[in-house]
Amino acid sequence: MIMQKLQESIGKLNNPFVVGLDTKIDYLPHGVSSVVEFNSGIIDSIYDVVAAVKIQIAMYEERGVEGIEEFYRTAEYAKGRGLMVIADVKRADIGDTAVSYSKAYLSRDCIDFITLNPYLGYDSLAPFFEDSERYDKGVFILVKTSNKSSGDIQNLIVEGRPLYEVVADKVAGWGAVHMDGGYSRIGGVAGATYPDELKRIRGIMRYNYLLIPGYGAQGGTAEDIARALDGDINGILINSSRKVLLAYRKSNKDYREAARNKVLRMKEELRDAFNDRVQ
Amino acid sequence: MIMQKLQESIGKLNNPFVVGLDTKIDYLPHGVSSVVEFNSGIIDSIYDVVAAVKIQIAMYEERGVEGIEEFYRTAEYAKGRGLMVIADVKRADIGDTAVSYSKAYLSRDCIDFITLNPYLGYDSLAPFFEDSERYDKGVFILVKTSNKSSGDIQNLIVEGRPLYEVVADKVAGWGAVHMDGGYSRIGGVAGATYPDELKRIRGIMRYNYLLIPGYGAQGGTAEDIARALDGDINGILINSSRKVLLAYRKSNKDYREAARNKVLRMKEELRDAFNDRVQ
Repeated sequence: MIMQKLQESIGKLNNPFVVGLDTKIDYLPHGVSSVVEFNSGIIDSIYDVVAAVKIQIAMYEERGVEGIEEFYRTAEYAKGRGLMVIADVKRADIGDTAVSYSKAYLSRDCIDFITLNPYLGYDSLAPFFEDSERYDKGVFILVKTSNKSSGDIQNLIVEGRPLYEVVADKVAGWGAVHMDGGYSRIGGVAGATYPDELKRIRGIMRYNYLLIPGYGAQGGTAEDIARALDGDINGILINSSRKVLLAYRKSNKDYREAARNKVLRMKEELRDAFNDRVQ
Repeated sequence: MIMQKLQESIGKLNNPFVVGLDTKIDYLPHGVSSVVEFNSGIIDSIYDVVAAVKIQIAMYEERGVEGIEEFYRTAEYAKGRGLMVIADVKRADIGDTAVSYSKAYLSRDCIDFITLNPYLGYDSLAPFFEDSERYDKGVFILVKTSNKSSGDIQNLIVEGRPLYEVVADKVAGWGAVHMDGGYSRIGGVAGATYPDELKRIRGIMRYNYLLIPGYGAQGGTAEDIARALDGDINGILINSSRKVLLAYRKSNKDYREAARNKVLRMKEELRDAFNDRVQ
């Protein structure tokens, strides 16, 4: 259900972008007094043009108990507006402990997807896979991350090919038994900042959604993504955080209007890049 | 300072065990009504026989905002009793985001150490390294975890040797510029359930503390550890959680007395195992 819903929503909106609510206190414009107020304003302005928001929990954890409260209030507000919610938590732990992490997120109504780190192997991920079926949720497993040093571990050569390809293979295999319509509940994370790697990962993970960070502020472009994916826009979610949240700083508009305009402009740029590629 | 303090405390107590406060609601004995009450009782009963406690945040995150409040209250209570506190959070994210995670834990007085996941590479860890100097704290990076599937990724062969050895090499290298007395602020995690791997990791990471999980309930024994370390008990912390927290279920004693007795018994078993090995 969830993967079909995601696919339908992206298709209807004609927009694979998700807005990353990685809100820091110093992002708040004059006159906005809390993170939840800011996030709610952003959500109100983009709920009808994107399928999902991604909430990076680190910025909320930084502010302790109060921050965690704001994390959940943001997730609930987005959910109430009809958006799907990705909790970007990148959790990983041994089996018993993973059960607790999975319950923490996947058992909650306000969260649809979480991100996970594969370093501990299958049994650290299995509780999330089980809960994805139980609660009709999905997960995205880190394959190739968008940061500069991601190659330190992820590009080490394992039997003739980079580790991220081995991980992509494993994720595709694990995901094959958790299909929901045409796509698996188990997706991957592959950064827009490494288009060659993204292309190889897409080649391996054909039935898995790819969550693509690194667009915009980190340097990945619409052309990079369109080229990497050979003009096929299906099965992807592209995250943009700062470019949307801080769009108001480069305009004279209210932060909400600036955010909406930015999302609509990114959507057009992306369609253009993919159309150029296809033609 | 912190690493010297850790070393002195373990030396004085003659005990490298840390107690893991991975408290689940169903661990509470009859008459104990909250996780914080239970944890405080455990802390009161072991504060003078161990150097540190390790708090696994997953069990607290599972209970949402309330759980996070209990996590911090537990850390503060342990700190107030003179214990060092390891926040077992296994966090990992790209640089900017890692800054927030680092602030969330290392900037707080009640936390001395955290655990980290290396999959995203150096720049995802650097903010924690910087903060370890700024706030006089330490970190433990996952090298070889104690779970059954840890080999899925960690034992893949990279240029003739397993990935965990490559990671151990990197951690040792990163740690070399963050020395505090005889040991680095940057330590590693290596499970007691894989003594051969633990031996190789010790061989690579000679100036890094090793946090060793997997003792007891997961199957690692004192003899396994003593053998892996060739009878050298320095530079290690061994975690035990369930065996201590649930010791009361195998005795007629109060949970606090049972926990203390268990820790003292484990300490003796460990000394015996190491002495047998040395002689």
